[in-house]
Amino acid sequence: MKTLLLCCLLCFGVRAARADEGMWPYNQVPVEAIRSTFGVSLDSTWLRHLQRSTVRLGNGCSGSLVSPDGLVLTNHHCVQDVLVGHSTEQNDLFAHGFVARSRAEELPAPTIAIDVLVEMQDVTARVRAALAGLDDQKANEARKRVLSQIELASEAASRKDPATGSLHCEVVTLYQGGQYMLYRYKRYEDVRLVFAPEDAIADYGGDPDNFQYPRWDLDMALVRVYEDGKPAHTPEYLHASPAGPAESDPVFVSGQPGTTERLLTVAQLERERDAVLPLRALLESELRGRYLQFGKIGPEENREVQDPLLDLENGLKVRRMELAALLDDSLLASKARDERALRAAVTADPALARDAGGAWDEVAHAQARARELEVRHDLTEGRSGMRGTLWTYARTIVRGAAEREKPNGERLREFVETQLPYVEQRLLAPDPVYPAIERLEMSFGFERLREWLGPDDPLVHAVLGRTAPDTLAARLVAGTRLADPAFREQLWKGGAKAVAASDDPMIVYVRTLDPALRAIRKQWEDEVDAPTTRGSEAIARARFAVYGTSRYPDATSTLRFNAGRVEGWTEAGKPVAPFTTIGQAFARATGDDPLALPPSWIGARAALDPATLFNYCTTNDIVGGNSGSPVVNAKGELVGLVFDGNIESIAGTYWFDPRVNRTVAVHPAAMREALVRIYGAEGLAREMGLVR
Amino acid sequence: MKTLLLCCLLCFGVRAARADEGMWPYNQVPVEAIRSTFGVSLDSTWLRHLQRSTVRLGNGCSGSLVSPDGLVLTNHHCVQDVLVGHSTEQNDLFAHGFVARSRAEELPAPTIAIDVLVEMQDVTARVRAALAGLDDQKANEARKRVLSQIELASEAASRKDPATGSLHCEVVTLYQGGQYMLYRYKRYEDVRLVFAPEDAIADYGGDPDNFQYPRWDLDMALVRVYEDGKPAHTPEYLHASPAGPAESDPVFVSGQPGTTERLLTVAQLERERDAVLPLRALLESELRGRYLQFGKIGPEENREVQDPLLDLENGLKVRRMELAALLDDSLLASKARDERALRAAVTADPALARDAGGAWDEVAHAQARARELEVRHDLTEGRSGMRGTLWTYARTIVRGAAEREKPNGERLREFVETQLPYVEQRLLAPDPVYPAIERLEMSFGFERLREWLGPDDPLVHAVLGRTAPDTLAARLVAGTRLADPAFREQLWKGGAKAVAASDDPMIVYVRTLDPALRAIRKQWEDEVDAPTTRGSEAIARARFAVYGTSRYPDATSTLRFNAGRVEGWTEAGKPVAPFTTIGQAFARATGDDPLALPPSWIGARAALDPATLFNYCTTNDIVGGNSGSPVVNAKGELVGLVFDGNIESIAGTYWFDPRVNRTVAVHPAAMREALVRIYGAEGLAREMGLVR
Repeated sequence: MKTLLLCCLLCFGVRAARADEGMWPYNQVPVEAIRSTFGVSLDSTWLRHLQRSTVRLGNGCSGSLVSPDGLVLTNHHCVQDVLVGHSTEQNDLFAHGFVARSRAEELPAPTIAIDVLVEMQDVTARVRAALAGLDDQKANEARKRVLSQIELASEAASRKDPATGSLHCEVVTLYQGGQYMLYRYKRYEDVRLVFAPEDAIADYGGDPDNFQYPRWDLDMALVRVYEDGKPAHTPEYLHASPAGPAESDPVFVSGQPGTTERLLTVAQLERERDAVLPLRALLESELRGRYLQFGKIGPEENREVQDPLLDLENGLKVRRMELAALLDDSLLASKARDERALRAAVTADPALARDAGGAWDEVAHAQARARELEVRHDLTEGRSGMRGTLWTYARTIVRGAAEREKPNGERLREFVETQLPYVEQRLLAPDPVYPAIERLEMSFGFERLREWLGPDDPLVHAVLGRTAPDTLAARLVAGTRLADPAFREQLWKGGAKAVAASDDPMIVYVRTLDPALRAIRKQWEDEVDAPTTRGSEAIARARFAVYGTSRYPDATSTLRFNAGRVEGWTEAGKPVAPFTTIGQAFARATGDDPLALPPSWIGARAALDPATLFNYCTTNDIVGGNSGSPVVNAKGELVGLVFDGNIESIAGTYWFDPRVNRTVAVHPAAMREALVRIYGAEGLAREMGLVR
Repeated sequence: MKTLLLCCLLCFGVRAARADEGMWPYNQVPVEAIRSTFGVSLDSTWLRHLQRSTVRLGNGCSGSLVSPDGLVLTNHHCVQDVLVGHSTEQNDLFAHGFVARSRAEELPAPTIAIDVLVEMQDVTARVRAALAGLDDQKANEARKRVLSQIELASEAASRKDPATGSLHCEVVTLYQGGQYMLYRYKRYEDVRLVFAPEDAIADYGGDPDNFQYPRWDLDMALVRVYEDGKPAHTPEYLHASPAGPAESDPVFVSGQPGTTERLLTVAQLERERDAVLPLRALLESELRGRYLQFGKIGPEENREVQDPLLDLENGLKVRRMELAALLDDSLLASKARDERALRAAVTADPALARDAGGAWDEVAHAQARARELEVRHDLTEGRSGMRGTLWTYARTIVRGAAEREKPNGERLREFVETQLPYVEQRLLAPDPVYPAIERLEMSFGFERLREWLGPDDPLVHAVLGRTAPDTLAARLVAGTRLADPAFREQLWKGGAKAVAASDDPMIVYVRTLDPALRAIRKQWEDEVDAPTTRGSEAIARARFAVYGTSRYPDATSTLRFNAGRVEGWTEAGKPVAPFTTIGQAFARATGDDPLALPPSWIGARAALDPATLFNYCTTNDIVGGNSGSPVVNAKGELVGLVFDGNIESIAGTYWFDPRVNRTVAVHPAAMREALVRIYGAEGLAREMGLVR
């Protein structure tokens, strides 16, 4: 424990680096560059406080602790599934919002677990030692094994350590395997919903305004973490400053950016451009059309489809802009220059050349193989694989049962011991299942698999037999009992024996198909992932040797820190102002979705100060996963809530352009005004420090 | 007249060129290369006979005359809208097929006009003279004017010439303006439906099999051209050979390939890759999802959506493969090499350099401007513009009224005198209008315009005001009377005055919006089309000077001739056989759409010879627009009916790869077997020469 803490203290050391971009791990924050660029001195106490006030939501969002009683601020869109889960046709919390008038009224949020990163430890040497001398495939297996061992041992140690109490531990891969870090989290599994406004104001402007600025969105929500049935005591939390920042003020963002691809090789970027993104964007566009048309059947259908539709549209917009970024040949040219420079440095150093000289070709070769396997893998085990909650439940149950029979180190990564609580929580959460959406999603998956692989492909025969996609989807969805959490629990707890004995048609179907799907995954892992990882690790080692940690690692859904300023930008020759006001939101309203203000706002209009600042934009470097991140000022006060980036920020996946890349945040004055004057929740505003 | 004929005779002269690719105008057929490659000597009589037996359908398809009584063979998918137009919920001709048992039973096909190209004349010098010394914009206007003059004068001359009778004349642009040809057509406007099989066998395998091979499709239909209420006398027609060709036999395809882009500059190809294709593919994918989901509501919805859905899916598959072709950097590298070679030849010749030295930069500059204007133009006046039959009617009426007031030479190109009969025919044809499809399409257009231009764009304000897309679409569709052909005729005939006085909501809407849309079109024509055309013409002149007509021009929906062989290919190491049989089609049937054989086939199974050849593939170089083209053997006999290409043929838009690019055709033996043994139409088989 002491060793770990010491390590962290040392890590908050002085570094020289550019300060205007970068998603920095807390142990590598370039405090010297920040001092010279922003005139702000950040010490280790300041940083540790922000680190421990930042939280990770199990669903990929970020948030912050904003009171000593476990109150957590995040985005409305981060608790969307909780709101939908509590909604019925009569009482639609997603549409109408929710305010707990007392702690007794706070509602369970079973799909959300909340983690606070308390410690970090570099375990690179230990992982390297375990892989030494192994070939690709063996190294892949050995890596899984050693990561699991480190995680389990660390969790076991925490349970015996009264200073920490039980911690959740994960080995985090940074710099494409250049560095392995053990991250230890305090986990809260009892999370409750406290406040959410109406979707109409949280997402004012709707999909057309997503990734746009200026904006007028109250995309906030409050949840609370509980321990032993009581609000958790959380001494590390952020105090809000209702005044917020001024233009040009330095501001800092803390959160879990999901994925960036800034260290990919040119061969990898070209595959993204040619194969990965076009396929996914086409499939997602079509599914978007299906969802939208389904939602036009009636208000209930429209309600059911909102949740998957918003997720999809968000992802699709990202895909579209990423593709546009990669089709800009100047980006690839700039990446090629960087790559040539690093390769030249490697060639000039015999030791580096021995280790990494062939790595780029190795990665390129794996990408060529990936292009051959892409469609088959992506449509089954990859990102465009079968959608549908019931299908996912069935696969989790069938695979989980088989995997849990194996030693921890030999399991598929998502079923290792440390992941099982997550898996179980997602599987057993009483989420609503809408049969029509399930049929739509499964049928879509079947139809596109048949289209892209061709009707004569053996896998297509195995998936469809001689049944039409709609018929098969309807039969599986109508016949399965997996919508019932108790039934899922029974199968999950019953393990391999229960799965083998089940006659539930969805379980039987997935059980029969699973060997073919596992084979696709295995081939992908062996022929694409393993050589890509090995090559990338060699390149990362070389990059380390040349540049050290003066460069930040790609985002990996792990905690990062970033410095920026409140600042507009210039678009097509016109300045975009950094702040918007509540008055402008009213001026913009048309009364029709997505520009219809909710009745609560219209009713409160006279009581609101139209000059109240609403949203603002900053130069912070964020990506998806930063949703819900706190924005703090130099004093460490909460001065904003990240909920989006401008459209230019999407190219941030591949590079950061400080001229136009902007973060978009909710201003604390708008939070205060809404809580106090619209939602009658002055108590919450006071608890956050928005009212003093 | 004699001059023209002489010109044509001379044109069928000896040329040295590659024979295995190329869509050759009939006056440039490389007979010498064909003799040496295929061992077949084609003389001018042979070629003229094939030319005059080939027809163009007004809807972009090809076909051939197959009897002296005006019988025309084309594809089922080319008469799809005729079948749908005669269909009702009770009697679905598209699904169930149609056989006229006598000439009296032949059904009107009002949306189809049929043209036979009888003469060609080079008018390049005359057009050049009219453009000499003019700047871009003026040259654009002058070109429109002189083309109209030539066309009108030629039509007037034909009306006075008893040898030809009234002809329809069009000036055709070849080699991107390197050559202008006057094409004179014999036109048949009274066309009637004679025979079509069930969609289930015409399109067996459905969309999954589109652009695939092997195939088993009876994608044929028969129509008949009438004159003065009687079957037209057509002395030039093809005799069918029921035996068909053998493997490796030379075969020739005649028809109207729509568009290829083989002479585009690298800058133009890059814009296609980066801007044009991704936008269109995304929009079309989403619309596909909307159509599909709409069709799942019930059988009537499914019937209504088939026609637009099939068109869309066909186009989308093309877009996807074109994008894949352009993302293959080796294609662009090869194009860049060709471009460098031609530029070097231009630079080396002072006269050429003066004329065309700056042309590539000029085209590149216009492409850069196009990228800026792309979205706005494409979503309004371009290919992704507003869909919907009612919208199209309204725009034709509103624009047509205004344009007809102008002198012929100053009109928008689609409203010049020679085009008006087409325009009127399409406008007044009694096609069915389905309000739900109209709402779907209009709403889609509105939503995507708002998405891509942003809700604050002035055009979006003009289009939507403060109304939601669904609301506006529903209001316009419910309120308009444009579904009634008599109402359309009244407005069309009433001209500008009737349009100005109309209170039909769709007319009022389009009338109000039209100035904004015309401004977008004007800007595009001035800043993109005009400089691109000028630059391309200069490049084309240079290419002429260097290579002559030894290279074929890009396809432009004009009549072309192509030579190839019956030949399979090798895919992923496995040979694909060139022929399929009727027996295989039965073996493949699942009973579920799209692999459900129609009842007529199942009932006739015992009577059919399973070894009958069904489809086959050839090395002919075709693209969309060749649908319905005859395949003939060295004797000039009809031995097949083109209906598709394999997936590799789509890259044919940009280049021809003889190793894998294949044409797919219906075998005459399958036509005979089906007409005689399944459809009881031996009379038609006899008329075609399939039964002797």
